[in-house]
Amino acid sequence: MQATESVLPRYKRLAQQLWEGIVHAGLCEGSRIPSVRTLAVQHDVSLTTAVQALRWLETQGHIEARPRSGYFVARRPEHSCPARATGWPNPPPELDAQVRDHLAMVGAPCAVRLDLAVGEPSLYPVDRLSVLLRRSAYQQPDLVGAHARGAGHPDLRREIARQAMQYRCELAPDELVVTNGCIEALNLALRAVTRPGDVVAVESPTYFVLLQMLGALELRVLPIPCRTGTGMDLDALKSALNETRINAVVTIANANNPVGSIASDADKAALVRLLQARNIPLIEDDIFGDVCYDELRPRPARAFDTSGNVLLCGGFSKSLCPGLRLGWIAAGKFSDKVRALKYTTSMATAELQQTAVAGMLSSGGFALHLRRLKGALQDQQSALRDAVLRHFPEGTELSHPRGGFVLWLKLPTTGHLRVSTRPMFEQARTEGIGFAPGHLFGQGGAYDDCLRLNAGYRWTNNQEKAVERLGALARIAVAASE
Amino acid sequence: MQATESVLPRYKRLAQQLWEGIVHAGLCEGSRIPSVRTLAVQHDVSLTTAVQALRWLETQGHIEARPRSGYFVARRPEHSCPARATGWPNPPPELDAQVRDHLAMVGAPCAVRLDLAVGEPSLYPVDRLSVLLRRSAYQQPDLVGAHARGAGHPDLRREIARQAMQYRCELAPDELVVTNGCIEALNLALRAVTRPGDVVAVESPTYFVLLQMLGALELRVLPIPCRTGTGMDLDALKSALNETRINAVVTIANANNPVGSIASDADKAALVRLLQARNIPLIEDDIFGDVCYDELRPRPARAFDTSGNVLLCGGFSKSLCPGLRLGWIAAGKFSDKVRALKYTTSMATAELQQTAVAGMLSSGGFALHLRRLKGALQDQQSALRDAVLRHFPEGTELSHPRGGFVLWLKLPTTGHLRVSTRPMFEQARTEGIGFAPGHLFGQGGAYDDCLRLNAGYRWTNNQEKAVERLGALARIAVAASE
Repeated sequence: MQATESVLPRYKRLAQQLWEGIVHAGLCEGSRIPSVRTLAVQHDVSLTTAVQALRWLETQGHIEARPRSGYFVARRPEHSCPARATGWPNPPPELDAQVRDHLAMVGAPCAVRLDLAVGEPSLYPVDRLSVLLRRSAYQQPDLVGAHARGAGHPDLRREIARQAMQYRCELAPDELVVTNGCIEALNLALRAVTRPGDVVAVESPTYFVLLQMLGALELRVLPIPCRTGTGMDLDALKSALNETRINAVVTIANANNPVGSIASDADKAALVRLLQARNIPLIEDDIFGDVCYDELRPRPARAFDTSGNVLLCGGFSKSLCPGLRLGWIAAGKFSDKVRALKYTTSMATAELQQTAVAGMLSSGGFALHLRRLKGALQDQQSALRDAVLRHFPEGTELSHPRGGFVLWLKLPTTGHLRVSTRPMFEQARTEGIGFAPGHLFGQGGAYDDCLRLNAGYRWTNNQEKAVERLGALARIAVAASE
Repeated sequence: MQATESVLPRYKRLAQQLWEGIVHAGLCEGSRIPSVRTLAVQHDVSLTTAVQALRWLETQGHIEARPRSGYFVARRPEHSCPARATGWPNPPPELDAQVRDHLAMVGAPCAVRLDLAVGEPSLYPVDRLSVLLRRSAYQQPDLVGAHARGAGHPDLRREIARQAMQYRCELAPDELVVTNGCIEALNLALRAVTRPGDVVAVESPTYFVLLQMLGALELRVLPIPCRTGTGMDLDALKSALNETRINAVVTIANANNPVGSIASDADKAALVRLLQARNIPLIEDDIFGDVCYDELRPRPARAFDTSGNVLLCGGFSKSLCPGLRLGWIAAGKFSDKVRALKYTTSMATAELQQTAVAGMLSSGGFALHLRRLKGALQDQQSALRDAVLRHFPEGTELSHPRGGFVLWLKLPTTGHLRVSTRPMFEQARTEGIGFAPGHLFGQGGAYDDCLRLNAGYRWTNNQEKAVERLGALARIAVAASE
C-alpha cells in the first residue's frame, strides 16, 4: 500500500486530500480555500508543494484563483449548493417512529401546510422586529457580556412581568428566567421537579413534543382526558391521584394543543388547590395564552397560586415570531433549582433578541400586533371549520377552538374496524398536503382516528382544495373500516 | 375581613391592587399602565371605576397621564429603576456552595476582573458583528421559519465544516448541530452517551461548570490527573479503565481550562484508540482550540477518530463573541441521538446570529480577527506571568498556558498546614479584585491551594496593582499555614 501512495507525487496526494475534504464538507462554489501558507503548515509540506497542489486543482477546474484574494471553489454546476436543506433530511431514528414521520413531513416541501401550529409569515411583525433587532445590534447590547446574566436581560424580564400584570398574574422580574424557547422552559421545569422513572400526568390528547420530551427524560406518562371546551378532566385527575403516585402534572390550560379548549377560572383555581394540597408541582404551558381569541386574555392557572407550587412556562414563538426562539419560565418556589439547571444546561440566552422583544413589548406594539393576529386566526379558523364541514364525511367531530392555531378532528366509525388517519397521511404527503396525524398526540394508538389541521395560513382557494382532498381521503379511510 | 374590604370604595381597592402589582413587577418610571378598557375588562369593573382608580393613582403622584398615550408610571425618584441587575443577585442555593460563591462574584461589581475566562470587549469584533447582525435582521433570515431546522442554519454548518477542514478535521455539515453555546453541546453530548449514576472521567483540575453539569445530570466524576503542558495523563486513565467501569470520558485537549495545556497529536490519537478499543465514548470540549497561541491551530482529538466514537463540541463564545451564545456539536455515531435530544431540549437555535457568524467566517474576517486576538492574549498572558513572578511568594508554581485566557497558580506549602486560597478570595472580593479560587476546579478540596487568573484584559497599572495585592494576600495565606 505504501508503494501505491508513493507513486503519486506529494502535491497530487495533497490535492486529492484537499478535494476530498471539499466534497466531504459540502463546500459550495465560491467557498474560500485555505491559503498556501496555512496548507503548508497544516499538512507539513513546503510552500512549493502547496502551490503545486492548488495549481493542479485549478487545472482540473475544481478551484479558481481570484486576484489578491486566494483560491475559491470553482463555479461549476456539479459543485453548486444543493437546495437549501430543511434541517431534517433524515430524521434521527432515536426519536419515536411517529415523530420521525412528522419531522420528515416538516422537512419535506409541502404545497399546503396544514401540519405545523404556526401562522404564515405575513401574520408576524417581521419588519418591525427587524428594525428593533437592527437597533439592538447597533447599540451592541452586551454582545460580549451576556454570559454573566443567566436569568436573562432585565428589560425583558420586567416587560414580561408587566404583560402578566395586565392579565392579573403577579410575576416578579427576579423570579423569571429567559429561555431558548418555551421548549427549554418546559424541559427545565420537568427536570426541576422530577427524576427519571417518575410519573407525570398530562392532558390527553396533548402536544406531541411534550410526549417526546417526557420520553427523553425517562418519565412515565399518565394521560388524563381533556374535555372539549373545558380542558383537563379534574374528576379523572382526582381519581388518578387517589389510585397512583403522580410526581408532577403538566397542563396547557389556555388553548390546549390540539383541542383548543380553555379551562375556566374556577377549574384553574381548583386544579391549583388540588395539587397544592398534595404537594405535587403543576407545570403550566401557557404558550397559547396570548393568542386566545377573546379580547380578554385568559389568566393562567398560575394566577390562582399563592404557594409557589406552579411553574409557569411562556414564550413568544406563537404570539410574536417563531424564529426568535425566546421563552421564559416563572418557577415559583422552584426558581432556584431552575436557575441552577439553566446555568448548567445552556448558561444564558442570547441577549440580542431579548432587547428587541423588550422594545416591542414596552412600546405597545405587541398589543396592537396581537389584536390583528387574533382576529386573523379566528377568521381563518372559521373558514377552516366551514370547509371541513363541507368536505369531510358525515359524523366527523370537530373541536371548537377558543384560541391558537389548530383544529382537531375525529373521523366517524361506521364499521367494525377502527378508522386510521395514517394511510391518509402518507397519501396526502405525496400530494403535497401536510397535516398532523392523530396518533402523534397520544400513546398506544389512542387517536389513530383523529387529525390536526393548522389554521395559521390565510384562507385561499388552495387551502379549500386541500381540505376537499383530505375530505375525500377521509371518506376512503372511513369506508376501509367498514 | 369581608367588612374591612368593603370599607374602601371599589376604585380605591382597584388602585391599591394596581399599585401593588406595579411595585411587585418592579415597573420603572415611564412604564405603560394597562388601558382603562383593559382594566375594566380584566378586573370586571365599570369603565368609570377604572378611570377613578387611575385618577386616584395620578393624584397620589404614582402615575401620570400623557396625551393620547394613556397612563405611565410617574417619574419620581423612588420609582426609578434600580441599577441594571447582573442576573445573579442571589445565586441559587441549589448549586454547590462553591459555585454560588463564584456566581456571586460574577454578579458583584469588580474593579479588576481576573475571575472569568473572557477577553475584554475591545478584543471582540463587535462592530463588524453588529453590521452583520443588522444585515441579517434586514434580510429577515427566516425570522419565522427557523423552528423547522433543528440542526441549525445550513450556511453556518457549512462554514464550521470549512473551518474544521483548515485544521484537518473532517466534519460533514449534515453531522453538525448548532447549539445554544458550547455548554448546551456538552450537555447534549453527556445526555446522549450516559445515564444517571454513570461514571465520567475528566481531567483534574477541570472547568467548574463541567463539574456542576455532571452533578446536575447525576453523573459520578472520576478525576484523571492533567499533566502540565501535555494534558490528560493517559497512563493514569489506562489504570483507571482497568480498575473501574467508566461510561464516558470528557477531555479539553486544546488549551485545557484551567491548566492551558495542549495534548500532543500522538497523545490525542492514543486517547482516541484507547477508548475506541473499549467502546467508551469520548466527549471533546474544543472551545479553546481557536485561541491557542501557535499560528498552527492544534487539531482536536476528533481528527484522529475513524469510528465515530468522538463527540466534538465547539463554539464561538471564546473566539468570536461571548454574548452570541452560539456553539455546535459533531457527534459522530451519536448524531441521531443528539439531534433527537436537541429537538426535545430546545428544538432549534435562533438563526439570526447563525447567519451573521456564517458571514464572518465566509468572509475571512474571522481569520484576521483570530490572529489579532491570539496575539493580544499571548502578550497579556506574558505580562500577567511576569507580574505574578514579581509579586507572589517564592515557590509559587505557574502553568505555561499554550492558549486560552487563564493562568493557573499553586501556592507553596512551607508549614504543616495546607494553604487555602479561600480566605484570600473573600478578602480580595471586598477590595474589588476578582479571581477564581482553586477549590472550584476539583472535588474534596483538591485544589484549595490553587487559584486561576484571567489574562483576557489589556495589561494596565490597575492589573499590576491587583496582582501585587493578590501576591501580598498569598503571602499572608502561606504564612498562616506555618
